[in-house]
Amino acid sequence: MRILVTNDDGIFSPGIKALGLAMRALGEVYVVAPDVEQSAVGHGITVRRPLRFKHTASAGFGEIPAYRVDGTPADCVVLGVHLLGRPDLLVSGINIGVNLGLDLTHSGTVAAALEGTSLGIPSIAFSLDTSGEELNFEEAARFAVAIARFVAERGLPQGTLLNVNFPPRPRGVRVTRLSTHHYEDTVVERLDPEGRPYYWIAGQPVGEEEEGTDLWAVRQGYVSVTPVSLDFTDYGFKARLEALLQDHPLPLP
Amino acid sequence: MRILVTNDDGIFSPGIKALGLAMRALGEVYVVAPDVEQSAVGHGITVRRPLRFKHTASAGFGEIPAYRVDGTPADCVVLGVHLLGRPDLLVSGINIGVNLGLDLTHSGTVAAALEGTSLGIPSIAFSLDTSGEELNFEEAARFAVAIARFVAERGLPQGTLLNVNFPPRPRGVRVTRLSTHHYEDTVVERLDPEGRPYYWIAGQPVGEEEEGTDLWAVRQGYVSVTPVSLDFTDYGFKARLEALLQDHPLPLP
Repeated sequence: MRILVTNDDGIFSPGIKALGLAMRALGEVYVVAPDVEQSAVGHGITVRRPLRFKHTASAGFGEIPAYRVDGTPADCVVLGVHLLGRPDLLVSGINIGVNLGLDLTHSGTVAAALEGTSLGIPSIAFSLDTSGEELNFEEAARFAVAIARFVAERGLPQGTLLNVNFPPRPRGVRVTRLSTHHYEDTVVERLDPEGRPYYWIAGQPVGEEEEGTDLWAVRQGYVSVTPVSLDFTDYGFKARLEALLQDHPLPLP
Repeated sequence: MRILVTNDDGIFSPGIKALGLAMRALGEVYVVAPDVEQSAVGHGITVRRPLRFKHTASAGFGEIPAYRVDGTPADCVVLGVHLLGRPDLLVSGINIGVNLGLDLTHSGTVAAALEGTSLGIPSIAFSLDTSGEELNFEEAARFAVAIARFVAERGLPQGTLLNVNFPPRPRGVRVTRLSTHHYEDTVVERLDPEGRPYYWIAGQPVGEEEEGTDLWAVRQGYVSVTPVSLDFTDYGFKARLEALLQDHPLPLP
């Protein structure tokens, strides 16, 4: 089995090193990751400028082929698949910090798994709650191998990925739904040396800790495993909207 | 009513100009958009560097307050809401080219609407099929006003946005589900003047034209209106995965 390992914290992150080395237990590993941290760059594919793809012996992967790309996590997946061959499994992470709820619309870690999924490759995103610091990346990576083995043996439905979050001190596993976890953005204004304003976006995590959600699971000390679909259609509202538009047609051609 | 207008093609795009000017029919408009094209940057929020927020009289919006940001579409939404106040409605576009199916995982146009939705603001993304060139942005913007009025009067469910695509020659409206439309990526290798390789990602649009999907609707000449949910959980597979993991527990703590 061939396993493509990527992330969004960059190829020199301890999270991807632990994940890449641990995945050798399952098969042949290759690493393609951004050259610098790409947190919150989201799902972009770089099409307006060319990309470099460079072997990176210094990242500490030993005999594992490891390449860095001056682009996004999704770029790494596209280049990795085209230049090194299609993997049987894609794993992304281990991210420094959780990716829960509405974080998924921003997360580069999950973006790589979305890209893999849209290419038809079974894909898993792994993130670690590093606020407590009880679990290290090597321990988390051992759990990641167990989950990856499960996926390799049983597969995933077409168009579905797994988003996995590790709590600081795991006491079990829960299959979860996404929460409303997100960052309440604030904007901080500063003045540059010439007196002109500039702005920092900063966020505080907020969200309902409802039972059964990913946020609830991680807070309760469970490894959260959320199946995520590429089909973002809101089927419930779709039916209502059809009925509404039947009764109140839009004044369009 | 206050309407925030944004996009991902940049503040100087003809699509946002047509949309912003047309939206005056519904209320007080303000424009906050990227300073340069941000296509396929996806859903990123810029938190590792500060941002500028500059009044941009030269974008052709006349009396409408118009600001450019050196960041992503989602950055524009966050800064616009914080610095100019919360809108009653957010519209993003009109994008040059469709945003269908799996494009949504990359689209900056949709990313802005996702950001608005996660802030609790009713949000709509508009894109125009420019391959045929029969419909101009001013015509598309008139249809956009009709759809925005419908949303302003009836609201949207919490956590749901509308993704709207205009065909070259509209002959009606269809409420649709997302297709499997995406870009089959290819990687083109070139050599720089010193003989070192670099890579372009290029893509060809592919996808099943199944009846009822956004791709089908646009190909058939209908305005496609897709309700999109922020909750990406795959509930169908979630139940199966729970049963599977009950029978085959993962070897985790």
